[in-house]
Amino acid sequence: MAYGKDIKEILYGGDYNPEQWPQEVWEEDMRLMKKAHINIVTLNTFSWAALQPSEDRYCFENLDRIMDLVRKNGLKVCLATATGAHPAWMAKRHPDILRTDRNGIKRKFGGRHNSCPNSPSYRKYAAKLAGLLAKRYKGYENIVAWHVSNEFGGECYCENCEQAFRKWLQKRFGTIEELNRVFYTAFWGHTFYSWDEVVLPNLQSEHFLADGMERSMFQGITLEYRRFMSESMLECFQMEYQEIKKEMPDIPVTTNLMGFYKPLDYQKWAKQMDFVSWDSYPDPADTPAETALQHDLMRGIHKQESFVLMEQTPSVTNWQPYNRLKRPGEVRLLSYQAAAHGADAIQFFQIRQSVGACEKFHGAVIGHAGRDDTRVFRELEQLGRELGQLGDVFLEGHTPAEAAIFFDWDNWWALEDSAGPSIRMKYLDAVKDYYTAAFESNIPLDIIGMEDSFDSYKVIIAPLLYMTKTGIDERIRKFVGNGGIFVTTYFSGIVDGHDLVVQGGYPGRLRDILGIWVEENDALLEGEENSFVYKGTLYPARVLCDLMHLEHAKALSVYAKDFYQNMPVITKNQFGRGYAYYVGTRSDSGFYHKFLEDIFTEAKVAEAMATPKGVEAAIRVADDREVLFLMNHNEGSEWVVLNHDYSDLLNGKEYRKGDPVEVGAKGVFLFLKRNTK
Amino acid sequence: MAYGKDIKEILYGGDYNPEQWPQEVWEEDMRLMKKAHINIVTLNTFSWAALQPSEDRYCFENLDRIMDLVRKNGLKVCLATATGAHPAWMAKRHPDILRTDRNGIKRKFGGRHNSCPNSPSYRKYAAKLAGLLAKRYKGYENIVAWHVSNEFGGECYCENCEQAFRKWLQKRFGTIEELNRVFYTAFWGHTFYSWDEVVLPNLQSEHFLADGMERSMFQGITLEYRRFMSESMLECFQMEYQEIKKEMPDIPVTTNLMGFYKPLDYQKWAKQMDFVSWDSYPDPADTPAETALQHDLMRGIHKQESFVLMEQTPSVTNWQPYNRLKRPGEVRLLSYQAAAHGADAIQFFQIRQSVGACEKFHGAVIGHAGRDDTRVFRELEQLGRELGQLGDVFLEGHTPAEAAIFFDWDNWWALEDSAGPSIRMKYLDAVKDYYTAAFESNIPLDIIGMEDSFDSYKVIIAPLLYMTKTGIDERIRKFVGNGGIFVTTYFSGIVDGHDLVVQGGYPGRLRDILGIWVEENDALLEGEENSFVYKGTLYPARVLCDLMHLEHAKALSVYAKDFYQNMPVITKNQFGRGYAYYVGTRSDSGFYHKFLEDIFTEAKVAEAMATPKGVEAAIRVADDREVLFLMNHNEGSEWVVLNHDYSDLLNGKEYRKGDPVEVGAKGVFLFLKRNTK
Amino acid sequence: MAYGKDIKEILYGGDYNPEQWPQEVWEEDMRLMKKAHINIVTLNTFSWAALQPSEDRYCFENLDRIMDLVRKNGLKVCLATATGAHPAWMAKRHPDILRTDRNGIKRKFGGRHNSCPNSPSYRKYAAKLAGLLAKRYKGYENIVAWHVSNEFGGECYCENCEQAFRKWLQKRFGTIEELNRVFYTAFWGHTFYSWDEVVLPNLQSEHFLADGMERSMFQGITLEYRRFMSESMLECFQMEYQEIKKEMPDIPVTTNLMGFYKPLDYQKWAKQMDFVSWDSYPDPADTPAETALQHDLMRGIHKQESFVLMEQTPSVTNWQPYNRLKRPGEVRLLSYQAAAHGADAIQFFQIRQSVGACEKFHGAVIGHAGRDDTRVFRELEQLGRELGQLGDVFLEGHTPAEAAIFFDWDNWWALEDSAGPSIRMKYLDAVKDYYTAAFESNIPLDIIGMEDSFDSYKVIIAPLLYMTKTGIDERIRKFVGNGGIFVTTYFSGIVDGHDLVVQGGYPGRLRDILGIWVEENDALLEGEENSFVYKGTLYPARVLCDLMHLEHAKALSVYAKDFYQNMPVITKNQFGRGYAYYVGTRSDSGFYHKFLEDIFTEAKVAEAMATPKGVEAAIRVADDREVLFLMNHNEGSEWVVLNHDYSDLLNGKEYRKGDPVEVGAKGVFLFLKRNTK
Repeated sequence: MAYGKDIKEILYGGDYNPEQWPQEVWEEDMRLMKKAHINIVTLNTFSWAALQPSEDRYCFENLDRIMDLVRKNGLKVCLATATGAHPAWMAKRHPDILRTDRNGIKRKFGGRHNSCPNSPSYRKYAAKLAGLLAKRYKGYENIVAWHVSNEFGGECYCENCEQAFRKWLQKRFGTIEELNRVFYTAFWGHTFYSWDEVVLPNLQSEHFLADGMERSMFQGITLEYRRFMSESMLECFQMEYQEIKKEMPDIPVTTNLMGFYKPLDYQKWAKQMDFVSWDSYPDPADTPAETALQHDLMRGIHKQESFVLMEQTPSVTNWQPYNRLKRPGEVRLLSYQAAAHGADAIQFFQIRQSVGACEKFHGAVIGHAGRDDTRVFRELEQLGRELGQLGDVFLEGHTPAEAAIFFDWDNWWALEDSAGPSIRMKYLDAVKDYYTAAFESNIPLDIIGMEDSFDSYKVIIAPLLYMTKTGIDERIRKFVGNGGIFVTTYFSGIVDGHDLVVQGGYPGRLRDILGIWVEENDALLEGEENSFVYKGTLYPARVLCDLMHLEHAKALSVYAKDFYQNMPVITKNQFGRGYAYYVGTRSDSGFYHKFLEDIFTEAKVAEAMATPKGVEAAIRVADDREVLFLMNHNEGSEWVVLNHDYSDLLNGKEYRKGDPVEVGAKGVFLFLKRNTK
Repeated sequence: MAYGKDIKEILYGGDYNPEQWPQEVWEEDMRLMKKAHINIVTLNTFSWAALQPSEDRYCFENLDRIMDLVRKNGLKVCLATATGAHPAWMAKRHPDILRTDRNGIKRKFGGRHNSCPNSPSYRKYAAKLAGLLAKRYKGYENIVAWHVSNEFGGECYCENCEQAFRKWLQKRFGTIEELNRVFYTAFWGHTFYSWDEVVLPNLQSEHFLADGMERSMFQGITLEYRRFMSESMLECFQMEYQEIKKEMPDIPVTTNLMGFYKPLDYQKWAKQMDFVSWDSYPDPADTPAETALQHDLMRGIHKQESFVLMEQTPSVTNWQPYNRLKRPGEVRLLSYQAAAHGADAIQFFQIRQSVGACEKFHGAVIGHAGRDDTRVFRELEQLGRELGQLGDVFLEGHTPAEAAIFFDWDNWWALEDSAGPSIRMKYLDAVKDYYTAAFESNIPLDIIGMEDSFDSYKVIIAPLLYMTKTGIDERIRKFVGNGGIFVTTYFSGIVDGHDLVVQGGYPGRLRDILGIWVEENDALLEGEENSFVYKGTLYPARVLCDLMHLEHAKALSVYAKDFYQNMPVITKNQFGRGYAYYVGTRSDSGFYHKFLEDIFTEAKVAEAMATPKGVEAAIRVADDREVLFLMNHNEGSEWVVLNHDYSDLLNGKEYRKGDPVEVGAKGVFLFLKRNTK
Repeated sequence: MAYGKDIKEILYGGDYNPEQWPQEVWEEDMRLMKKAHINIVTLNTFSWAALQPSEDRYCFENLDRIMDLVRKNGLKVCLATATGAHPAWMAKRHPDILRTDRNGIKRKFGGRHNSCPNSPSYRKYAAKLAGLLAKRYKGYENIVAWHVSNEFGGECYCENCEQAFRKWLQKRFGTIEELNRVFYTAFWGHTFYSWDEVVLPNLQSEHFLADGMERSMFQGITLEYRRFMSESMLECFQMEYQEIKKEMPDIPVTTNLMGFYKPLDYQKWAKQMDFVSWDSYPDPADTPAETALQHDLMRGIHKQESFVLMEQTPSVTNWQPYNRLKRPGEVRLLSYQAAAHGADAIQFFQIRQSVGACEKFHGAVIGHAGRDDTRVFRELEQLGRELGQLGDVFLEGHTPAEAAIFFDWDNWWALEDSAGPSIRMKYLDAVKDYYTAAFESNIPLDIIGMEDSFDSYKVIIAPLLYMTKTGIDERIRKFVGNGGIFVTTYFSGIVDGHDLVVQGGYPGRLRDILGIWVEENDALLEGEENSFVYKGTLYPARVLCDLMHLEHAKALSVYAKDFYQNMPVITKNQFGRGYAYYVGTRSDSGFYHKFLEDIFTEAKVAEAMATPKGVEAAIRVADDREVLFLMNHNEGSEWVVLNHDYSDLLNGKEYRKGDPVEVGAKGVFLFLKRNTK
């Protein structure tokens, strides 16, 4: 729902920090924002110290001035609660607010993400500030949303967290016997006899550094700590949320998420958020698919509803090792790609570039030169103008996906905390393997959680479904039984929701569905490969080779060599009215393209528009309007043949099915599909 | 002596942790063990928390049940004292038991290897538990050995350790003046005026991180700390040992060692152990020689007596970066290789695979599937059957070595703690250079310590003998004087037992024996090489080039280039009735093969059987029986021509000298040499 | 001025630590030093623990003996104050003397550089010791200088430092408002309301590890901490300085610096030192230019006066990863190179090699063998003889530079602490680019600070002048306006002295001088390159590409590709009677050679002698004597044609202009230019 049904335009703007500037600059900022067609600002993100200069004193005058200024200038506001970093005086006076790091070292004042989520002082003062802000500004009709804190993240290992962890475990497991069972403490004699013997897992206790990673000796404890820490922060979000809702019950509340951010289980978070917003900072090495995948994930965690692109850089980041400029057209392309995948608002960090501290070289709408004739400003101005033209044509639109990929934070955590079989076995790699193949064929996908409905999908892909929590197998069983196609991979079905191995043979609870028994898993050394032939082509087998036996399934391909030569590597099992596939190794993109093509054909997934490599065709459907985004991610222009009659939404030009269109480098077309019935 | 002279069979089994399982699983385990011909289990390794649930309460009922069960099923027991990891409640109640890390950060409860060896609580409760166990179970005649703690290791830097270190130094050096002398504190004005000014060397004091290593600024202090820490842990072993011996004086006591484990001076440890047992976990990249070398070391530390292979994985580890499956036949091959080098028992970690915590993906006799038809189970069953057939044919047998390699922990520590001349100069590399050349020629070697007898050897090789402790030179002098051949290398004879340089010219105390003066040591940069010609072939000179002058020695080869072109690189000195060789640089395997071949020929070391590369021929002699182990480490089969008349111990077939036999990939033959006199 | 105008010979010697040796060795040392023509020793460097064995007791008897011995033997003395490492008892009794590391962990006794510069105990006892020493030894007429402490360095983050930092900030900024302004605390709401809320920036507060570096989130705070820590240590130097001056006002006082040592702002330090001395330990990978550059820097920080080479190794270091021997002739070559660039004394660490602790494998005049016939001793003896022959021919001579390079510690700190645009953008790289090109053309350069006079230069090069402190632009404006040539580079003129961006367009305060506006900076990815044509040759553009617009300047070259193809990359601007050049990217040595050749030609910088690559020709002018040092850094001999009439200072031979001379590998000629007028 993004900013909500009342918003009938694509909101366009970004983080604005006038508190860093003398007031004489503000008026110039207003002029420049208008020129750039900006209609929304996110305010107050880091003003806690300014708003609360001491224990009992609050000071809203400057914010009043800013709020009045932007209202006067017709800007909508996404109002932040300013709790993303606490004041220095608070750290000095209430050191419980400071975090303790993974070595057990108590931090001092500094940075952001710096408040312990279980600090009584933090919880008290953050909630109070949110409440005071809501009370004071509820009369501002231009507030379209609240923005709690900023980019929640990190972790803490202090004594308050340890106490809270013990309470949380007690509530969750009830008895110490059950705790010992799920933590598998019989191993190494770690049996706990009382709750207060439990310690947080960090580098002082169960964790250690190896292979460049922090590893755990008790994955069950680590898994619970991850759940606990994600929930602790979510509670902080909720506390502020509730304070705001008391005053402004109808205005949606969000916080800005970060895509593939491992520490926080955003699927749980999104349930507590009115809408999702997120910050997209692709690395220069990221593929278009990788960026799109994160948009789809952010859409997926909130019922496939539209979201807000809360932050992106207009031109350059400052914190990457090499901060490459976004090329001409690139910010426009990435903005439309976000929209194509569900964004209803396009916002930037930041409106005006700061002149000090660590983000002073991060790009901005208004740079250090303060000019409106820079390359960046001109591109943003053009984009703003276009978005204005588009009105609400795709707002609240949905993605017409018939296939879905499972994504699950618990699975991510447990899989990558596992000791063995291979440190190169990464969850995101497996997800990207399948997503990218579909993306490059322009097949729309939903990214769904374990608890989401499977009803609307013909195909569900569960890459590396290591953890099968209670009930998921039964839901898959029904899905396949009813005619669905299910695909999963190597090292799936191994453990339950507590990271305890499902006994009796891999893939555990999925074994009957897949019709196989996986006897062993062979981790390949760096550089080592096996291979297999699928539909006449030889593909590599990498990272891990599952050694499996057919029970009811058929082998679609077998390993080409080593002692498991001729053992199955890809299997297909009829289960009820559907089919379950198992891909027992990691292969290359050529394989995933071919394999998914066959799967989608078998499942009768709607054919997608054909485009040259690097040209993305994505669809959003709003009411009865189907909008096609045609986006050229390449460095040169490409020709595409249209598969329907379309109207060009940006210049009104009409096209017929079969017409060729040239999409320039980094170019974008938005086509409205014409009803040809 | 391994499990002792009363054992007339090869014991076969492994670590068994029934405390992780409900009792209904135990009976199935008994059935499966019998099927696999298992006759020994190691029990109780990590049960401290179960056995002592609180300060004053002990609870042996479950262990009673397990002990009765395995006795009833005819299994022998290696009974562990369960002190390898302390209980959580103990850590909470007696925090002195927790270690402090190299940064000075006190640890919390977690992991294993977690007890401070100088903790009063640990020493009290560990010894007490060992005593109680011995008292309770002394009536079990199926106990063949006691297994104290588990894989002693790690280090601690707490205040108790610091106090103990000061006392230890006082006892060792008597006066503060002597301490200052051996620590060379005049350097940088580190003079101590009282014992309590001494601090443990760690990252808070004399250590720092550089070149990816922890380095020391006062090597003398670091060397003493290493000795102290190894001895502190050894005292812990001894405390438990004594408690057990009070009750069961005739049953041998061991603890499981770890081969090349740097922190513990196993040569000192083995003197206090009734027999040696160790855990062999070769890395996939290890050569057969590297595995054999560790077996030989483990044999060598206890008077060349046979030992127990206490742990190896049946199939796969879980803690390596890439956990490759042992290939078909590989576990059998590695088991026989252990036996060929002195093992009298073959045991696995673990009998049944755990379902939780960090070792859940470590291989086991009984895997997660619980089946007896897995590849791994079938291989183990076959191996168990074979070992049963072999009876005691090689038990207590010895290795007929005429040559030996020096190995010394003090030298390892001091050499690699030295600042300069090259971080690439590694002790194990130098040892492996020589060992591998002999191994690949099937020449049996003993690995001996500085205090062991030299009498039975024709050749002694002392790679990188940096440290010459008091008396060693005199013993070498006698050995060579009496006709022995002594070989040493670059950077030898540099320091005394306190890491103080022996003045007057390198190689110090060895100078007269070697007949040379080494004036300088040139460290080669990464990728840099010199070279030399030996017996007509050009070989590389790497890592370090000693620049030396002949005194009485002859040059066998000279450097080929650089400003020290034509200076000697390999020398030979007649000393008394023997010869002393000096190899002033590190070369490649081609050189070591040729060089040792010449040495062995000169020394009239018995010729070994010729085998193709990768096929190992090793001999054990028990009473008058000589058993030849023929082991093919290659991926394909190889032909070997027999050098004597033999009987095949596994199938009874008779062979004549000159007969060719085909050894399959990973294949093994055990031949009994027929008396052809 | 080095040791001062009274010294009419090149002093030659080094660090001598007789306290490590029994007295019987001392006499032998005297004999060997005489043989090597040594005439100066640095004494007492690490004797604090010996001189002050407890709180109230001092013990100078041994030092008395040493002082008498060396006086009797005609040696001059550079007398150290022994405060480079504190005594162990002091650390135990006064733990405030111990440093706290960047993680916030308090250190224990160990190492050197171990005293907190703001420790009251350290300041009290260090100053007291210096005073006592000066009082006791002021009668020794052979003391030619005092040497305070040793290689000041490192950093501390203890509470005393934190308190002192707050006071220092208060003194520096006066009001908390000004502090907030310069720290830019409006960003992330870090506003301080009282001085005691400020915390030291370290890994507990504003710093974090990324890309293998320690980075800061508030560069302004970090910059001030760097200034504060450098000054804190300088205060320690000054305290001892003043104590010495009370007793021996006429004897110069120094401390040994370390060239490019980032933590200490040596330009500020040198102002407080009577003369500069430094320790030169080139890495084997360093070019001759890199070594020369550091000599020139060390000369430049003290008004281009001559300095003392306080330490170099006679043969080998011990602390590098691979400690390569200095080749025959190399120590002589490096000694003359130091002299050519301003050294008036040549000293070694160390006279006699220690036998214990971490520097026992560092080279020495007298090695472990104790012989005078080693290669190293013989080379040093020859060098000592030559230096004796040379008398005072070049003492106090100056370098006739007409061009200068800016070097500024604040700029170094701020630039490399900046977050963005590229971690590969390094200050020293940029400085070396230009220095090396001039050096390889034998053009003498001065390295000057921001506050030094520009008057004597025709060309000033300011590589990567990121920070333009108040006034520097005006001084450059005058320099160029009066006809000077100014060269600067990419990412210059960005910030003011507080690391706050100069608004209005880059390069900020330099914009009018350079006549350009830099709109954007594109960081190139690893391996990425652009290129440009300069004077007909194509050169690479690396690391960073500035995208700029001409205002008054002319483009000398443009980018060859990418979206900024044809934008200027090198510009030239007439400003007043001079010219200002901007090089908007980093290129290769070919470019810098050609570019500087053109610049020097345009500026009419005196032509230098032509030599083959690797042969350095450097000039020192003392009174009316011009001495040419001809130094062959290559591995083979080279021919040089003389450009004047010369007398060979070492053998008296006369040469005429046009004569060819052969300079052997590592060979050196010292020529006195004959007055040919």
